[in-house]
Amino acid sequence: MTEPASLPVVHTVADLRAVVRDWKRQGLTVGMVPTMGALHEGHLTLVREAGRRADRVVASNFVNPTQFAANEDLGRYPRRQEEDARLLAGAGCHLMFAPTPEEMYPQGFATSVAVAGPALGLEGDFRPQMFGGVALVVTKLFNQVQPDVAVFGEKDYQQLMVIRRFVRDLDLPVEIIGAPTQRDETGLALSSRNDYLSDAELAVARRLNVILAEAAAGAAAGRPLPGVERDAYSAILKAGFERIDYVAVRHAEDLSPFRDGVVDAPARILAAAWLGKTRLIDNRAV
Amino acid sequence: MTEPASLPVVHTVADLRAVVRDWKRQGLTVGMVPTMGALHEGHLTLVREAGRRADRVVASNFVNPTQFAANEDLGRYPRRQEEDARLLAGAGCHLMFAPTPEEMYPQGFATSVAVAGPALGLEGDFRPQMFGGVALVVTKLFNQVQPDVAVFGEKDYQQLMVIRRFVRDLDLPVEIIGAPTQRDETGLALSSRNDYLSDAELAVARRLNVILAEAAAGAAAGRPLPGVERDAYSAILKAGFERIDYVAVRHAEDLSPFRDGVVDAPARILAAAWLGKTRLIDNRAV
Repeated sequence: MTEPASLPVVHTVADLRAVVRDWKRQGLTVGMVPTMGALHEGHLTLVREAGRRADRVVASNFVNPTQFAANEDLGRYPRRQEEDARLLAGAGCHLMFAPTPEEMYPQGFATSVAVAGPALGLEGDFRPQMFGGVALVVTKLFNQVQPDVAVFGEKDYQQLMVIRRFVRDLDLPVEIIGAPTQRDETGLALSSRNDYLSDAELAVARRLNVILAEAAAGAAAGRPLPGVERDAYSAILKAGFERIDYVAVRHAEDLSPFRDGVVDAPARILAAAWLGKTRLIDNRAV
Repeated sequence: MTEPASLPVVHTVADLRAVVRDWKRQGLTVGMVPTMGALHEGHLTLVREAGRRADRVVASNFVNPTQFAANEDLGRYPRRQEEDARLLAGAGCHLMFAPTPEEMYPQGFATSVAVAGPALGLEGDFRPQMFGGVALVVTKLFNQVQPDVAVFGEKDYQQLMVIRRFVRDLDLPVEIIGAPTQRDETGLALSSRNDYLSDAELAVARRLNVILAEAAAGAAAGRPLPGVERDAYSAILKAGFERIDYVAVRHAEDLSPFRDGVVDAPARILAAAWLGKTRLIDNRAV
C-alpha cells in the first residue's frame, strides 16, 4: 500500500474560494463534509460518500465555539489536525479547510441564526446554544465552499434534521445527504468523545446501542411509548450510566412526540446519557 | 419611443432557478434588486445600476410579511404588480420574481436570522421585527437567485448597513452596492409610502430633507451633536410633523453614537417622523 499524497490545507476563506473556483471553472462538482476534526472511521465514511457523489471533496476542520456553552468541553475537545489531514487524504478528500476562530468570527461579527421545529426538545433542552451555533457555522461553511452536496452522519440525528430544515428554509442551494452511523464491532457508535472513556466506561458505553435497539423493536411492535421509554431509561441506568438527559421515541423527521403514545408513522429513538464527565448520544430507526 | 417588451415573471423558486441556471450556463453575470413592489423612480435607478454591473437583472417583488409588526401597514402597503412589471421592463430588467407568501414561508418553516451591531437602535428601537425580517428574506432571495451583485438604495440607509453586515457575517457570495437616494425636485426622498400623503402632508414632508441637510452641515462644521439633534427635532415638529421617532447623527458604517458628542469620523444623520398614519424616513451624509 502506498502512502497517500499529502492533503492541501487552506486556512482562509479567500484561499478556499480560489481552489473551489478553479474546480468549478473545470466543470467539476463539489462535495463537502463539515467536521470538528478528531476524525475517526465515521467521518471517513462521510468523506467516501461525498466522493461517490461529487468530483471533488472538501472537509472542513473547525471546532466551532458558537455551538458550545461556557460549561461544555470546547477547551478539551480533541485537536489533531496533522493526523486528520493524513486520514482525510487516505479517504479520498481533496482539500481540508481549517480556519481560525478569528477567520470565522472577526471583530464586529453580529449575525445569528435560530431554528425552531426539529431543534426544539431533546438536545435543544440540554444544549440550548448548540443548534443555533451549528446553523450559523454550517450556513457560513456552505456559503464559503458553495458545495453541490454535503454529507452528515446520522449519529447526530437531530442535528441532521435541523440542518435539513434550515437548508430548506434559507434556500441554500446544496443537497443534504444523511449517512448511517458507523459502529464498532459491539455496536458502539463511533464518536470523538469516546476518546475520553476509560476501559471500564467503554464497556458500559457499549450497552447503550443494544438497549436502544431493544426499545426500538418494542415501539415498532406497538408497545405504548411511555412504557418503552421508561424501561429503556431504567436499563441505561442499570447498565452503569450515571445520568440520562433524555431517551425518547419521536417522529422521524420533525422530531415531534407521538401524541397517542404509540408509533403510527416513521419514528426514531434517541438518547443522551453521561458516563463521568462524558456525554454520549446515540439513536436508532424504529 | 417604443413600448418595452413585456417582462417575464416567475412565481416559484424552481422557475426562477431554471432561468438563472440558463443565464449562468451562458456565462452571463446576474444582478439583483430586491423590492416590495409599488415601484417608483428610486427603484428604477437601482435596476439601471444593476444593469450597468451585470449582464442580466432580476427584480424581486414581494411584500415580506416577516418584516412587518402586527400593528404596521402590511395590509395597506400598495400592491400593483402589472404596473411594476411594465416599469421594470422599461428600466432594463430581465425577470421579475414575484413569489407568494406560501412559496417563501411554507408550512413548517422554522428558521430565523438576527443581526445586532448596526441593527441596534434607530429603526431597531421602533420596528424591532424589521431587520430580522429583512435579513431572513434577503438571505433567502440571495440563495434563490445567487446573484453576483445586488443593489440597495441609501434611502433605507440603516437597512443597507445591516445587509452589508450579515452578508459579510454569513459569507454570502454577493457584492452589495449602495445607490444614492432618489429625490423629487424639492429634495423629498422618493418612497412608496409617499402615496399615502395628502397634498398638505406632502408640503410638510418636503421640509424633512432640508432640515436634515442643515443639521448635517452644522455637525460637519463641528457643532456639538446634542444641540444639532435638539434643533433638528424642534424644526421637524415646527414644520408640521406630528411625532418623531428619532433624529440622530451616527457613525456612517456601524451606526454607533459619537461618544464625544462631535463628529470626528464619517457620519450620517438619520430621522424617522410621522405625518398622520404615515411614517417617513430620510438620511443624509454628514
